Amino acid sequence: MKFAIAQLNPTVGDLTHNAQQVVEAARQADQAGVEVMVTTELVLCGYPPRDLLLRPGFVRAMKRQLDQLATELPPRLMVLVGFAAVNPQAEQAGEKPLFNSAALLQGGEVQQVFHKQLLPTYDVFDEDRYFAPGPGASIFTLAGVGRVGITICEDLWNDEKFWGERRYPHNPIADLAAAGVDLVINLSASPYALHKPGLRAAMLAHSAQRYNCALLYANQVGGNDDLIFDGASMAFNRQGNLMGQLPAFQPGLLVIDYDAMQGDLQPTEVSALPPDGQESLWSALCLGVRDYARKCGFTKAVIGLSGGIDSALVATLAAAALGPEQVLGVLMPSPYSSDHSISDAQALCQNLGINHTILPIEPLMLAYDHTLESLFAGTQSGVTEENLQSRIRGNLLMAIANKFGYLLLSTGNKSEMAVGYCTLYGDMNGGLAAIADVPKTRVYSLCDWINQHRGVPPAYWGQLARRELTGPLIPQAILDKPPSAELKPGQVDQDSLPPYPILDDILERLVNHHQSLADITAAGHDAGVVEQVMGLVTRAEFKRRQAPPVLKVTDRAFGLGWRMPIAYRWSKDDF
Amino acid sequence: MKFAIAQLNPTVGDLTHNAQQVVEAARQADQAGVEVMVTTELVLCGYPPRDLLLRPGFVRAMKRQLDQLATELPPRLMVLVGFAAVNPQAEQAGEKPLFNSAALLQGGEVQQVFHKQLLPTYDVFDEDRYFAPGPGASIFTLAGVGRVGITICEDLWNDEKFWGERRYPHNPIADLAAAGVDLVINLSASPYALHKPGLRAAMLAHSAQRYNCALLYANQVGGNDDLIFDGASMAFNRQGNLMGQLPAFQPGLLVIDYDAMQGDLQPTEVSALPPDGQESLWSALCLGVRDYARKCGFTKAVIGLSGGIDSALVATLAAAALGPEQVLGVLMPSPYSSDHSISDAQALCQNLGINHTILPIEPLMLAYDHTLESLFAGTQSGVTEENLQSRIRGNLLMAIANKFGYLLLSTGNKSEMAVGYCTLYGDMNGGLAAIADVPKTRVYSLCDWINQHRGVPPAYWGQLARRELTGPLIPQAILDKPPSAELKPGQVDQDSLPPYPILDDILERLVNHHQSLADITAAGHDAGVVEQVMGLVTRAEFKRRQAPPVLKVTDRAFGLGWRMPIAYRWSKDDF
Repeated sequence: MKFAIAQLNPTVGDLTHNAQQVVEAARQADQAGVEVMVTTELVLCGYPPRDLLLRPGFVRAMKRQLDQLATELPPRLMVLVGFAAVNPQAEQAGEKPLFNSAALLQGGEVQQVFHKQLLPTYDVFDEDRYFAPGPGASIFTLAGVGRVGITICEDLWNDEKFWGERRYPHNPIADLAAAGVDLVINLSASPYALHKPGLRAAMLAHSAQRYNCALLYANQVGGNDDLIFDGASMAFNRQGNLMGQLPAFQPGLLVIDYDAMQGDLQPTEVSALPPDGQESLWSALCLGVRDYARKCGFTKAVIGLSGGIDSALVATLAAAALGPEQVLGVLMPSPYSSDHSISDAQALCQNLGINHTILPIEPLMLAYDHTLESLFAGTQSGVTEENLQSRIRGNLLMAIANKFGYLLLSTGNKSEMAVGYCTLYGDMNGGLAAIADVPKTRVYSLCDWINQHRGVPPAYWGQLARRELTGPLIPQAILDKPPSAELKPGQVDQDSLPPYPILDDILERLVNHHQSLADITAAGHDAGVVEQVMGLVTRAEFKRRQAPPVLKVTDRAFGLGWRMPIAYRWSKDDF
Repeated sequence: MKFAIAQLNPTVGDLTHNAQQVVEAARQADQAGVEVMVTTELVLCGYPPRDLLLRPGFVRAMKRQLDQLATELPPRLMVLVGFAAVNPQAEQAGEKPLFNSAALLQGGEVQQVFHKQLLPTYDVFDEDRYFAPGPGASIFTLAGVGRVGITICEDLWNDEKFWGERRYPHNPIADLAAAGVDLVINLSASPYALHKPGLRAAMLAHSAQRYNCALLYANQVGGNDDLIFDGASMAFNRQGNLMGQLPAFQPGLLVIDYDAMQGDLQPTEVSALPPDGQESLWSALCLGVRDYARKCGFTKAVIGLSGGIDSALVATLAAAALGPEQVLGVLMPSPYSSDHSISDAQALCQNLGINHTILPIEPLMLAYDHTLESLFAGTQSGVTEENLQSRIRGNLLMAIANKFGYLLLSTGNKSEMAVGYCTLYGDMNGGLAAIADVPKTRVYSLCDWINQHRGVPPAYWGQLARRELTGPLIPQAILDKPPSAELKPGQVDQDSLPPYPILDDILERLVNHHQSLADITAAGHDAGVVEQVMGLVTRAEFKRRQAPPVLKVTDRAFGLGWRMPIAYRWSKDDF
C-alpha cells in the first residue's frame, strides 16, 4: 500500500490556491498509485493564520473550501488535509471556538476529522488563543495496514524520555501506541531554527522506535512573514530508521510503500539536507526573503549598501533569492564615509551582478542642519546628527522603494537589534529584516562560508548560481575591515560596544538562555560588561517594537515571539 | 472588622518601588484600624509583566521581594499581594512553570498562597503562555467573618448567566459559593476600554447578588505601555449593592467595614466615576500619556502640529498630562500647507500655553528632489513625494526629540491606522501613538466635548486646569475645516476615503465585530465601499506592524492584541 507526503508551500489566507496545490499533488500521487496522501498542518489556510481565525467568515470560507476540495480530488484517494474546524460545543462547555484539525477526504466528502491535542503556547506560538485541545486519541482503520493514528505537529513533541521533562500532561503517541496503532501520521508546520532539523529528526526516530510505530511526518515548507518552514518531511520504520525524506526548503512529494506483511514502511528516496550550520542557515534565509517578497507581491528588492558586511550579506541573499537583475543597491556616502566604503560596495555589486546607484547625502545633511540651525544653536553635534544621517538614508531608500515598487530589505543584524546599535526610522527601515536574527559573529562566519563554498554545492545558490567569478563573491576587504557605522570621523563599533565575540556570547546567554549575571560571570565574562549589555538590551526595546518582521532562524528571535514591556524599570537581578 | 482596598499604580518590573507602594498603603491602612488589606493582581511586578516572566532570575527576585515585603508590613495586618509563584510540579506534570497568585502576608511571613484559575488568552492577554491554572477553590477562614474566597481577575468573568455563554469550563465564584464562602475578594488588573467600567460593575453586582456573597474588588490603576488600568475598585454587599468605590484613573485606599453580626459589608465612600464616553476616554488617554512618559523617564513631549484636529487633540492631551510648559509643538509648513494651518496651530499653542517652533520644509523637499532627480527623471510626482514630505517632518521631530530628550507623540487616529492613510517613518513616528485607538469621528466628538466642557469638571483637566480662556480651548476653525493631509494642492481626505462617519462605521463592524460583507451591506453600506475598506485594512498591515505602542481604549485595538499576517492573500469572503 502506497502513501504519499505532500510537502506544500501554502500562503496564509490564500484558501483557493492552497487548495489547488493539494489537488495538484493529489493528482500526481494518484497517478503513482498512492492510496493515502498526507498534507501539512492547516495547509488550507497556511500556517500561521493568526487572528484571521477570529473571523467567523474566514472559518466558514475555509470549510467551504474544504468541501469543495473534497470534490476535486481523485475520488479513490484518501487525503488528509489540515484545516481549522469549528468546535460545536465551545459556548456551552466554555472552550475555545476552534480545533486545529485534519480532515480525511475521500469519495468527494469529508469522511472523518481529527483534532490536535497539544497546543503550543510559547515563543511564536499562540494556539491556546484560538483552539481547544482535541479530546483524545485519533485513530482510523485502514485495510491493509491496520490502525492508523493521526497527530498534528506538537502532539509528537512531548516525549519525556527524549526531552527529560514534560511540557503537557499527556503524550499522544504513547496513547496511540497503547491503543495498538501500527502507523502514526503527523501533519506539521514546524518552523526552522538553527540546530532544530537534527533535533526534530532525532526526536521522531526516538519515538518511532520507542513506541514501535511506523511514522509519516509531513512538514510545511516556505516562508510566511517571519517564520521559515524547512519541510524535510520524513518517514521512519518501526525501528526508528529513516526510510524516506523530502528535501528541505522546497516543496515535494514523497511516495512510500507500506508492506502489509512486514507491517512496516519500506525504503524510498532519502533526499540529502543542507548540513546544520551555514548551509541550512543560508538556505533558510534565501527562502525567507524569496517567499516574503513573493507572497507580498514584490519581485524586486532595494538595499542600502554601506560597504559593510551586513548589507553585503543581505544583498547577496536578495540576489540569490530574487535574481541579481531584480536587486538594486543604493550607495549613500557622507563626508564620514571611507573611500573604501564606495569601492567595496561597488565591487560587491559587480560580483553579484546587481545594479547600483550612488546618492551622496551631504547636501541633505546640510539642509537638515540649516533647517534646525536656530533650534539647535549652542548644542554639541552628537547622536542626533548621527541618527539624521541614518534617517536621510532611510528616507531615500523608502522613496526609491515607493517610486519603483521595490521591497526594501533592512540590513541590521541581531547583535545590533539587541543592543540598539541601529537607528529607528533610519537603517531599521524596511519591509523585512532579513538578518536581524543572525548575530554579528555569525554574519562573519556565514560570509566566510559563502566565499569559501560558493560554486561547490550549486543547489544552494539560487539565481546566483549562474554567476561565474574568479575571486570571492563578497570582496575580502568587506570581511577584513573593522565594523563601523561611519557616522562620525574614525568611528568603529568597538568604541561603544564590547568586541562582537564577547557581546554575542553574552547576548546568547541573556536572550536565548535567560542566564543570570552570576551564570554569565561564572562563564568568564566581566560583570560590568554584562550589566552594560543588560542595560542596552532593555533600553532598546522601543526600537525593536517598531522593527520590521525579523526572519526567525534561532530558538529566540526578536519579533512576535519576543514580548517585552517598554515602560519597564529594570535591575541586574531581573535576568 | 475593617478591610482596605489598595488601588496602586505599579511600574512593570520595578519590584522595589512597587513593594514600597504596598508598604505605604499598608501603614495607612494599619493606622485606620484595618485588619485585611487587598492589593491588585501581580502588583509586585506590575501588570502585564509579559516575557519578564520567562526569566528565572526575575521570578526569583520577585519571591525575594515578597519575603522582604512581608517583614516590612505592620505585623498584625493581613495583606493580600499579587505575585507570580513558581509551580513546583511543572516539569513533572507537564504544566506551565508559574501561577498567577496572591500571597497572604502576616506577621512577617507568607501565610498562604492562592492561585488564579481562569487564564485569559485572547486579545492582549497571553496568560496561558506563562501560567498554569490554579487547582481549585481558594479559601481561608477569617475570625469575625467566616470563609473568605480569593479570586484573581478573570476568575470572576465567567458567569454564564451574566454573559449568556461560558468562556471556561469552570466558574470559580459558583464553586466558592457552593463551599459556603461569605466574602469573595478579587485582585484584578482589568484594563480600561470604552463602555467597560459599567459592564464590569454590572457583572460584579450580578455575581454578588446571584451568589449571595459580599465582594471586594481591587483593580490596578495606571498606564503600562499600551494598556490603561482605570482602577475604580469596588465593594458590593450580598444584595449586589455598591457599598464603596475608589476613584477611577488615580491611586487610592478604601477602608470598609464588615459587620460580623449582619455578615455583610457596610456602606463607605463611593467616589463618582467619570461618565462613560468622552469623560472616561479623556481621563484614560491623559493617564496613558502621563504614565508612559513617566515610566519611560520622560518629562517633556514634542508633537508635530499640522493645524489639523488629530495633532490638536494630542497636543491638548500632552499639555493636560505633562503640563503646558513641558510640551513643544512643531509647525512644519510646506508649499502645500494652507495659510490657516499655521495660524490655527499657533492659536492652539497659545490657548494651550505650549511653546512652538516653525520649521518650513520646502528647502528639504528641494534637497531630496535634487538628490533623487536623475533617478526619478521622467516619473510623475505622486505618493512617493507625498510620503517624503511626511518623512522629512518625521525626521525633524525625531531630531528634536533626540537632541532635547522629548518623547515624540505620534498623532494618527484609528481610522487612518486602519486604512493606512498615514506614512510609515513619517507621521507614524513616535514613542507612543496616543490616539491610534480613537476613530476619527470620535476625535471630533471628543474635541467638541473638550471645547464645551472644559472648566466645568476641573478634575479632568490635569495641568490644563490652570489655564484661563474666554473662547474654546481648541480653535473652532480646526474642528470646522475638512480633514486634509495637505501633501498636494487642494487635497482632502475624502478624495481617497469614504466620508469618516461611513468609514468608521464600516471599520467598527470589520475590526471590532468581525462582521462579514453580507452583514455590513445588510446594515445599509455599499458593497463596493466595504470591499474597498477591506482591501485598505488588509494592505496596511505592514504599516501597523511597525507602529509605536497604541493606547488601547476600545475592545479591539491595533497593537499587541491584534495579530494579523502581513504576507496574506485576502478575499472579501475572509471577513
